[in-house]
Amino acid sequence: MADPRFFANRGPFPLKRIAEIGGATLPDGADAGRTIADVAPLDTAGPNDLSWFDNKRYLDQLRATKAAACLIAAKFAGSVPAGTVALITDKPYRAYALIAQAFYPAPPVVPGVHPRAVVHPSARLGSGCEVAAGVVIEAGVRIGAHCRIDANAVIDANVTVGADCRIGANASLSHCQIGNRVTLHPGVRIGQDGFGFAPDPSGHVKVPQLGRVTIGDDCEIGANTTIDRGSGSDTVVGAGTWIDNLVQIGHNVRIGRGCIIVAQAGISGSTRLGDFVALGGQAGLTGHLSIGSGAQIAAQAGVMGDVPAGETVCGAPAVPIREFFRQTAVLQRLGKQKGKVE
Amino acid sequence: MADPRFFANRGPFPLKRIAEIGGATLPDGADAGRTIADVAPLDTAGPNDLSWFDNKRYLDQLRATKAAACLIAAKFAGSVPAGTVALITDKPYRAYALIAQAFYPAPPVVPGVHPRAVVHPSARLGSGCEVAAGVVIEAGVRIGAHCRIDANAVIDANVTVGADCRIGANASLSHCQIGNRVTLHPGVRIGQDGFGFAPDPSGHVKVPQLGRVTIGDDCEIGANTTIDRGSGSDTVVGAGTWIDNLVQIGHNVRIGRGCIIVAQAGISGSTRLGDFVALGGQAGLTGHLSIGSGAQIAAQAGVMGDVPAGETVCGAPAVPIREFFRQTAVLQRLGKQKGKVE
Amino acid sequence: MADPRFFANRGPFPLKRIAEIGGATLPDGADAGRTIADVAPLDTAGPNDLSWFDNKRYLDQLRATKAAACLIAAKFAGSVPAGTVALITDKPYRAYALIAQAFYPAPPVVPGVHPRAVVHPSARLGSGCEVAAGVVIEAGVRIGAHCRIDANAVIDANVTVGADCRIGANASLSHCQIGNRVTLHPGVRIGQDGFGFAPDPSGHVKVPQLGRVTIGDDCEIGANTTIDRGSGSDTVVGAGTWIDNLVQIGHNVRIGRGCIIVAQAGISGSTRLGDFVALGGQAGLTGHLSIGSGAQIAAQAGVMGDVPAGETVCGAPAVPIREFFRQTAVLQRLGKQKGKVE
Repeated sequence: MADPRFFANRGPFPLKRIAEIGGATLPDGADAGRTIADVAPLDTAGPNDLSWFDNKRYLDQLRATKAAACLIAAKFAGSVPAGTVALITDKPYRAYALIAQAFYPAPPVVPGVHPRAVVHPSARLGSGCEVAAGVVIEAGVRIGAHCRIDANAVIDANVTVGADCRIGANASLSHCQIGNRVTLHPGVRIGQDGFGFAPDPSGHVKVPQLGRVTIGDDCEIGANTTIDRGSGSDTVVGAGTWIDNLVQIGHNVRIGRGCIIVAQAGISGSTRLGDFVALGGQAGLTGHLSIGSGAQIAAQAGVMGDVPAGETVCGAPAVPIREFFRQTAVLQRLGKQKGKVE
Repeated sequence: MADPRFFANRGPFPLKRIAEIGGATLPDGADAGRTIADVAPLDTAGPNDLSWFDNKRYLDQLRATKAAACLIAAKFAGSVPAGTVALITDKPYRAYALIAQAFYPAPPVVPGVHPRAVVHPSARLGSGCEVAAGVVIEAGVRIGAHCRIDANAVIDANVTVGADCRIGANASLSHCQIGNRVTLHPGVRIGQDGFGFAPDPSGHVKVPQLGRVTIGDDCEIGANTTIDRGSGSDTVVGAGTWIDNLVQIGHNVRIGRGCIIVAQAGISGSTRLGDFVALGGQAGLTGHLSIGSGAQIAAQAGVMGDVPAGETVCGAPAVPIREFFRQTAVLQRLGKQKGKVE
Repeated sequence: MADPRFFANRGPFPLKRIAEIGGATLPDGADAGRTIADVAPLDTAGPNDLSWFDNKRYLDQLRATKAAACLIAAKFAGSVPAGTVALITDKPYRAYALIAQAFYPAPPVVPGVHPRAVVHPSARLGSGCEVAAGVVIEAGVRIGAHCRIDANAVIDANVTVGADCRIGANASLSHCQIGNRVTLHPGVRIGQDGFGFAPDPSGHVKVPQLGRVTIGDDCEIGANTTIDRGSGSDTVVGAGTWIDNLVQIGHNVRIGRGCIIVAQAGISGSTRLGDFVALGGQAGLTGHLSIGSGAQIAAQAGVMGDVPAGETVCGAPAVPIREFFRQTAVLQRLGKQKGKVE
């Protein structure tokens, strides 16, 4: 189903192999050798396609699917239609991800430096790197093996990048060190000055920003996201953290491992996040806060105080979710009492 | 009035021609041959300039204007000063737009590929295209006639672009097909991976993003806006939709025709908009929603449920506008009752 | 402490010189010749480092610091530990900024045009400019002395830039005039079309955007921020105004001197700000407003009406801060009255 101009399908795979890759259970009596040619969403999957179910919103699509097989939690297996094999797994979406990676692995890195790239003689590239046209790599840069640097990206002096990274088109990096297996999407800005100055009516005085940005292994940073370098200590993004598009990370922010930060969220200077924190889209955190591990910050929340580990907060100013729902209920009830308001 | 270093004035035009271009009515007795040399806002227009009136906030400026003529709805014509010709039209701003286009058409495309552009031999450019320095066009790209690609833009492999498009400086496109007469402003990011992964404490698992972005005819996409490609099906922007700067469009979003999306709004994955939907600045829509045609979403609204066609919603969580105003009124009343609060 | 790969330390300086640079008072009996080798935050400063204290949140760090000297307001001097010299000043952070600039001045501009830059023959560069690889400077551009243009930046035809400016990587400028000592961070977009059109069901009609952007002296504009040019009059950023990352400035906006605009804030078309206005992160202002000098707009505020000079407003819709706190208090009280709500 994927457009072959953009995606190369490495299938087909027999159903047994599909189940293995996804860590799913093939039901008794299923045809283990049945050919699975592709992956597809429930509503467009055909009789040679694998699909998955993990959102009750799409239960009608499940019941009507023509997929050959469907990754699904045991409790929903009864809704899978007769012609579709139910591949049971606790984590259908994770299983789908692994199988889809087998069908459509990331495009291979094609080693070589384009003649229209500009690489400073003192920069060092690991083996097997691909450097596209218009890329500019300044003095002293160190890049690990098998990285792909897309067209017109800019890597400023002395930046270090680990192995197996991908740096998107028109991205720019300075004053930073990047781990292994990191993906930076197009237009990412990493390492520029933080918003640091002493406000003064006679002219704000710039505070030199003397830290770096350090990004751990296995991170993904979305398009046009900005991460400022630290003012003294570093701005840190922990290993395995995923950041969406158009996110702002201020100077000295420290983000733990495995966090998820959705598009257009913003984190002000010196705020610290533990591990596995989730920030919804357009959420905003003021500076110098401490957000405990596992905390969940709802979309558009405005967080002005510390959040304990494991807490879920909503609203602006953000409050624990139960309070938020009560506030909202009160407000909506009052908003409907037309007579009493005026 | 426009700075001649940046804008070339194709005027003057006689008043009669002005009225024709704008579809406005020239009043009896007006001097049809009067020369109109330029367009200008009410407060700076001189005796050879055309102006327009469409916002009551500027009624004082209307009464004091020195413009030669003013596009205006009939009901306000009485406020036009004696020296100014009232050109009557139901849509003064639309009429102004057409007339201003006649004075200042878009700068011509100057055909040619700059020697410092990099165009893959397998890419095909239509006749009359202008490709600026530093542009990188990869293998298999197809671009229609009379397009202008500005400096340092990047068009990744197999992308298709229609005719009469303009792609701004430092923009990047991949995995997409773009219609005719589309304008992409500088720094736009189209077609990169969506934010798709299966969250997992042992490491989030990337979900290959196997769809495309398709952009209809006559769209305009603002600077540094990001549109992720679909995860399976496509991300779609319908014909005639205008998107402002710094907007985030998640994977699998489907936007209908003629929508207006103001700066810094964000639409989460798989949400669908009908036709002629308007989203205010900084509004946010969660994923998997259905927004009916003609719905209006206020600035900063946080939409967490479906919105029926034609509805106007405000606030976070968003509610119909009447409820919102009642909620706000109650809250402001309570906020002023100092004694009762404490 | 700063990574020497990225920052060159011009110290050490004797303590007496440090006090002079910062305009701070050296206490009686202090060793004026003591060597200060570096600057550092309180918690990491060692016995040769200067630090500063200006946020009560870090009082514990002050009491435990090992810094040689600490810039501090007189009223907190009693908390400085015995081994640390208290350098008294009313503005510790401003003093730190000046001293840090002495240790770490901005990296010098290295004059020269990289052979892979493309500079139109009709463009004029002042003496001592540095133009990096991949930069594209179009016809008629005028750039003052000692500017640094980073890699892959694009400066469109007839733009003027003052002296001692820095334009970041992958930034793009058109239809604008930039003052002296302006810093534009990577990915900034200045001068593109504003979001101007006459909405119409048969197709929105583009309104030619005939103004410019003018940026005063001593401004700093953050990464990936977008500033649209005026539709008729100019979009103006006053001297000494600092704008953070991912900010949207609509067409015809006029911003006064010394304003501070934090990340992801957005200002809609034709709104005017006086001098020394502060906008918090993610704040949004609708169009055609007047914001008086010295007004403070809280983070995430949604401003829908004029704000008088000196006023502080919060919330959405924004209200004066005292009202906002009362509203919030009422709401939180109601939200906690579980019994009464249902």
